[in-house]
Amino acid sequence: MAKEITSRSENYSQWYNDLVLKAGLAENSAVRGCMVIKPYGYSIWEKIQQQLDRLFKETGHENAYFPLFIPKSFLSKEAAHVEGFAKECAVVTHYRLKNSPDGKGVVVDPEAKLEEELIVRPTSETIIWNTYKNWIQSYRDLPILINQWANVVRWEMRTRLFLRTAEFLWQEGHTAHATREEAMEETRQMIDVYARFAREWMAMPVIQGYKTESERFAGAEETLCIEALMQDGKALQAGTSHFLGQNFAKAFDVMFTDKTGKLDYVWATSWGVSTRLMGALIMTHSDDNGLVLPPKLAPIQVVIVPIYKNDEQYAATCEKSHEIARRLRGLNLTVKVDDRDTHKPGWKFAEYEMKGVPVRLAIGARDLENGTVEVARRDTLTKEVKPMEGIEHFVVDLLDDIQKNLYAKAEDFRNRNTFKADTWDEFCDIIENKGGFVLAHWDETAETEAAIKDKLKATIRCIPFDNPMEEGKCILTGKPSRQRVLFARAY
Amino acid sequence: MAKEITSRSENYSQWYNDLVLKAGLAENSAVRGCMVIKPYGYSIWEKIQQQLDRLFKETGHENAYFPLFIPKSFLSKEAAHVEGFAKECAVVTHYRLKNSPDGKGVVVDPEAKLEEELIVRPTSETIIWNTYKNWIQSYRDLPILINQWANVVRWEMRTRLFLRTAEFLWQEGHTAHATREEAMEETRQMIDVYARFAREWMAMPVIQGYKTESERFAGAEETLCIEALMQDGKALQAGTSHFLGQNFAKAFDVMFTDKTGKLDYVWATSWGVSTRLMGALIMTHSDDNGLVLPPKLAPIQVVIVPIYKNDEQYAATCEKSHEIARRLRGLNLTVKVDDRDTHKPGWKFAEYEMKGVPVRLAIGARDLENGTVEVARRDTLTKEVKPMEGIEHFVVDLLDDIQKNLYAKAEDFRNRNTFKADTWDEFCDIIENKGGFVLAHWDETAETEAAIKDKLKATIRCIPFDNPMEEGKCILTGKPSRQRVLFARAY
Repeated sequence: MAKEITSRSENYSQWYNDLVLKAGLAENSAVRGCMVIKPYGYSIWEKIQQQLDRLFKETGHENAYFPLFIPKSFLSKEAAHVEGFAKECAVVTHYRLKNSPDGKGVVVDPEAKLEEELIVRPTSETIIWNTYKNWIQSYRDLPILINQWANVVRWEMRTRLFLRTAEFLWQEGHTAHATREEAMEETRQMIDVYARFAREWMAMPVIQGYKTESERFAGAEETLCIEALMQDGKALQAGTSHFLGQNFAKAFDVMFTDKTGKLDYVWATSWGVSTRLMGALIMTHSDDNGLVLPPKLAPIQVVIVPIYKNDEQYAATCEKSHEIARRLRGLNLTVKVDDRDTHKPGWKFAEYEMKGVPVRLAIGARDLENGTVEVARRDTLTKEVKPMEGIEHFVVDLLDDIQKNLYAKAEDFRNRNTFKADTWDEFCDIIENKGGFVLAHWDETAETEAAIKDKLKATIRCIPFDNPMEEGKCILTGKPSRQRVLFARAY
Repeated sequence: MAKEITSRSENYSQWYNDLVLKAGLAENSAVRGCMVIKPYGYSIWEKIQQQLDRLFKETGHENAYFPLFIPKSFLSKEAAHVEGFAKECAVVTHYRLKNSPDGKGVVVDPEAKLEEELIVRPTSETIIWNTYKNWIQSYRDLPILINQWANVVRWEMRTRLFLRTAEFLWQEGHTAHATREEAMEETRQMIDVYARFAREWMAMPVIQGYKTESERFAGAEETLCIEALMQDGKALQAGTSHFLGQNFAKAFDVMFTDKTGKLDYVWATSWGVSTRLMGALIMTHSDDNGLVLPPKLAPIQVVIVPIYKNDEQYAATCEKSHEIARRLRGLNLTVKVDDRDTHKPGWKFAEYEMKGVPVRLAIGARDLENGTVEVARRDTLTKEVKPMEGIEHFVVDLLDDIQKNLYAKAEDFRNRNTFKADTWDEFCDIIENKGGFVLAHWDETAETEAAIKDKLKATIRCIPFDNPMEEGKCILTGKPSRQRVLFARAY
């Protein structure tokens, strides 16, 4: 094999890092905590962006762009926002360099100090609501349905490629509404969009629900989320949608006249997903041979490798490979023919397995004689020989099957790793030894939630939508509870 | 009229600002020098991005993403780069805020000072070449053909929406090659891509050429550019492509083994266009009624306005409007039906004129009787009545005609405003009183170039490709010259 990675059972965390590097997805940069997203990784992110962007536009949103910098004073305008939001931010204090007096390099010009420091946006509610203030006078100016694709910076101390980086790419939707109900509907609509995207494109099952008060976004009255389960039994929050009430409107004094002429504060939502989705995608499907990609997000859906022993066979298998590629492209598939004579077929097979290409076709001299082609699928690592005639239709169906199979497999894994715990011992045993989601009773106090987090590093991932009501006793305190909530250790 | 803007003849600069604001393209933000790109402006930028991205991919480039921050020491690694590049940069010195001791807001935590300051990227050559160093060992790793879509920051003191802002959006291509020739070809290929994009999508004629040494990018051995002429007679540099030689490879020690086993430094190019193109687009075509957009970049290509006097007419004209919209969309046009009953037709007409929608259809009760529709074109502001039957094909042809007409008009303007000057007086007269491009002889010294800039604020925009050789005397010094070069005052 050309490249090897640590197996999941040996060291899951190392497996993840190996895979991200060896599949050419991303790497660490010279700047602490900031990653370089390499072309192959970025092409997956572009697919994610394209699909999400389409879903946002279909639900009436437009894109816009707001400044990278936020005046420091803006952050403290919304009390809960500044209190709850992490203060690890990149702070710009100066606006000029100058040549060093010793002639070696450059130094910061002390004369060029900003009157007010600027913060590199960790999220944009404050600068956006300061802008919306000038856009909104009347109910006729509402709703405002805007999304932004942008980079943001949060100075994380422990970083991991895609999962937690100081700079990351994301989209942040910021909407303004005339009524509480409309804003609540928007909040729910967008978490539904995220859940649909996770299921249909990422082939990743998610649980939708409400965050508890302690896990809410700083400044939100309600935070909805989608939670996925990774193969190591840890949960990953893959997207959030916040109902912000009138908090930011009040902080930035954004009022509107309603149809009856009454002045009121505007209602807000915000929602986002980030390059963290790349981490979720990798950890949901991949195996010890490398990345496994759902066909709908694969930059290359089919790779064709000619197999030959001499120049004559090379010419003939290449010709047939390109012909089949054309037929596949005619059905809107993205296809790569790897006809390089500098690498052996075995090397190529391992390479495209590492990169997660869903379907591989191999065409050898015997295939030409027999009118056949070898078809290998990445998800099951199985191979079969198929007639070359009509192979394009077989591949289209196969890709569809792979997409469905990946979802089914991930859902099955999730179901097999979702438990109910009724006693503290049982709860501890699952969290510490098995991993997975645990549905358990909780007394609805922040103290108990914090105590459980403290003891076991497990958090309440969410209170699922349409959660069945069921009387029980809190797993820790034994106090009465009305429903089970979803616990897990999480990324 | 709903909105009015200053006329170009009254105050060109004010006209530009009024237009950008009233057409809803962009506005200034609370952060000095940083703009908010509003949804309508951003949707034009998205069209620009989509087309350029396609042209980049067709020429073999892939997208990737590199860090926002650059360690300060990187900037001084390439001598000419640090010497020539403006030092007005946003400098990050701290990574944490904390609650203010007086309980009011937040302050920068003095404990959280970075060991080495980070610069918000003004351009990414340094961080990218530091990364390429690890990607390149052999000629087999070359070429690297990467583009990045990103935000960059240059602390400009005098800013103007789109034309010069502290933060702007752009793309920057950074390629690595095994030979000087290949890198030169790439440099030329990309300026040709920009020129083609300007002509075919922006309907903007450009002159391609070489920058003089003093106007080159800091660190480049050759800078190619496209230069356009705005309606006020000032030039605008719309895109640049740099041949960087081995300068950055040497600065970051990036070597490769060639086919013969010999070690050599890698050859580089970089090339970029930015949201400045929005300014160029606006100033090339627009008029005193507002924005004029070429159909290929218009977010709305056709607007349909029903004209009615009562509910019955409203229903009938709306129905017909939507039916025609469907027919137009069937031909891949983007169409908006403005059937709001809250605004009068006259208001809507002015609104879409301001927004530069290329074609407006108006459908009234009499049109329904006669089977006609009123067609207005934005570029010429002319109207005609056409049969409703087959109107979709008429509109397709009309959009094509508008695209061509805008180019022809801009080219005619450019030609009428390109002059030859043979004496200093003539030269001064044109630069100071007429504006436009001036082809004049120059003695090829940086001193003369600087003196002309100093006296007249005119710069050498470029030495055009395939410039005819012609003996003459320098406009300022009278020294011998081999060719005319292109002068203008510029944005």
